[in-house]
Amino acid sequence: MSLAGIETERPDPTLAAALAAVEAAGAAIRPWFRRRLVAETKDDLSPVTRADRDAEAAMRRVLGEAFPMDGILGEENGLEREEARRCWVIDPIDGTRAFITGRPSFGVLLALLEDGVPSLGIIDQPVTGERWIGRRGCRTLFTGRLGGEAATRACGSLAEAELSATAPAMFDATGRTRFQRLESACRRVYWGGDCYAYGLLALGCIDLVAEQDLKIWDWAALVPVIEGAGGVITDWQGSALRQGCAGDVLAAGDPALHGAAVAKLASAGGAP
Amino acid sequence: MSLAGIETERPDPTLAAALAAVEAAGAAIRPWFRRRLVAETKDDLSPVTRADRDAEAAMRRVLGEAFPMDGILGEENGLEREEARRCWVIDPIDGTRAFITGRPSFGVLLALLEDGVPSLGIIDQPVTGERWIGRRGCRTLFTGRLGGEAATRACGSLAEAELSATAPAMFDATGRTRFQRLESACRRVYWGGDCYAYGLLALGCIDLVAEQDLKIWDWAALVPVIEGAGGVITDWQGSALRQGCAGDVLAAGDPALHGAAVAKLASAGGAP
Repeated sequence: MSLAGIETERPDPTLAAALAAVEAAGAAIRPWFRRRLVAETKDDLSPVTRADRDAEAAMRRVLGEAFPMDGILGEENGLEREEARRCWVIDPIDGTRAFITGRPSFGVLLALLEDGVPSLGIIDQPVTGERWIGRRGCRTLFTGRLGGEAATRACGSLAEAELSATAPAMFDATGRTRFQRLESACRRVYWGGDCYAYGLLALGCIDLVAEQDLKIWDWAALVPVIEGAGGVITDWQGSALRQGCAGDVLAAGDPALHGAAVAKLASAGGAP
Repeated sequence: MSLAGIETERPDPTLAAALAAVEAAGAAIRPWFRRRLVAETKDDLSPVTRADRDAEAAMRRVLGEAFPMDGILGEENGLEREEARRCWVIDPIDGTRAFITGRPSFGVLLALLEDGVPSLGIIDQPVTGERWIGRRGCRTLFTGRLGGEAATRACGSLAEAELSATAPAMFDATGRTRFQRLESACRRVYWGGDCYAYGLLALGCIDLVAEQDLKIWDWAALVPVIEGAGGVITDWQGSALRQGCAGDVLAAGDPALHGAAVAKLASAGGAP
């Protein structure tokens, strides 16, 4: 791990393109925040707006110009250049529900997969101006006007842990039972948050996030951010998140707490 | 209603004291945001921190010096001068759970009751710098860096409505059934938010908030803010909120939607 962080390293064209892409997304999104905006409902019943589409198109333009040989996978417009070794993964607005209801807890997510492994991840909140930059093997960098530093906190036991999840409706029937077992063991749960909750975990403000039904564009950017802040992010069995996984995501700020959370989330038939 | 709003009126010593009080609370709170802070658990199982206590003490000082004959009721330190006609009602941090987990969705709430009726209400978010000022008979004023204007929006039917509530755990068993009936009729629900959700309703970003177990310091400040933005706020039966009420709160941005929401929230034995 580079203790000096990324600020002191030579300019990196990959990081520069990633930052330009999230800047372009923010510029497409900000004019629509808290404005009248039609939200259409997609096949999976999630909402989408012009801001989502414009932001993804802007990011694809920037990344396609900088690295025309790279693949690009985006939530709204699918996959280009599937065969490429490097693939950018875009969620132009993670938390569209939050965005369309005026909450500054949505985020622009951008990841770079190299041979399927997330090597770069950015969470960008374009309204509050908060940004988390994670790179495999480097300390996560956080900048923002609201305060905070990118470092997860120690947490001695589940009984002391602050847990978070976006919404009860994201769990399937079995998942709900498994989550409730974890919830009962934790100090408190707070609902809402989307990617912002993972950002708060990377700032040492909360201890656990457990969610279901996440797509690769929802979780890929979170991996380098959380690992570079000292945390662990896996599926509910404790295995590394991989393309094609089921989308059960568990993040723990204190790696020592991770095993206890996996045990609580063990399949409903398992030991309590 | 004064269409000119409060900006053009003569300086009002009551409003000036209220603003000084929320400024003092913000100054007491900001140094603790996203910092290590011990959260104690109160008798009602809700958390409290040094920031809550310091903020309430600061507000009591400011208001007590400006209006020594007024009553003051605060969440953390009880009631002074019960017999006074005017009574300030303070929630130094509404959403302590949000505050201790680094979410900028908590708020400082201050209301002035005159003969038991809220005549002034302020919702202040001291980290994002957002502030809603409501005065009985005046248009609500909103200031903040994240955008938005204080005016509720029209919403034609429950099927188009964005609903919000802080947490499933706030409902009692019957209340949960009643809320679920409302939730099923609405377009979407978003969890989390505390007083910030009522602020978003006053900005025309969401249409309904339905919550239970709110104390007078949770709801008193919301009344002038929501009414002055064009909305309606009552209990679940549609009656005005009054000191000593059960704490079931329903806010609707479009007054025409309020009756439909009350019907869905009718006691569980009632018509669906």
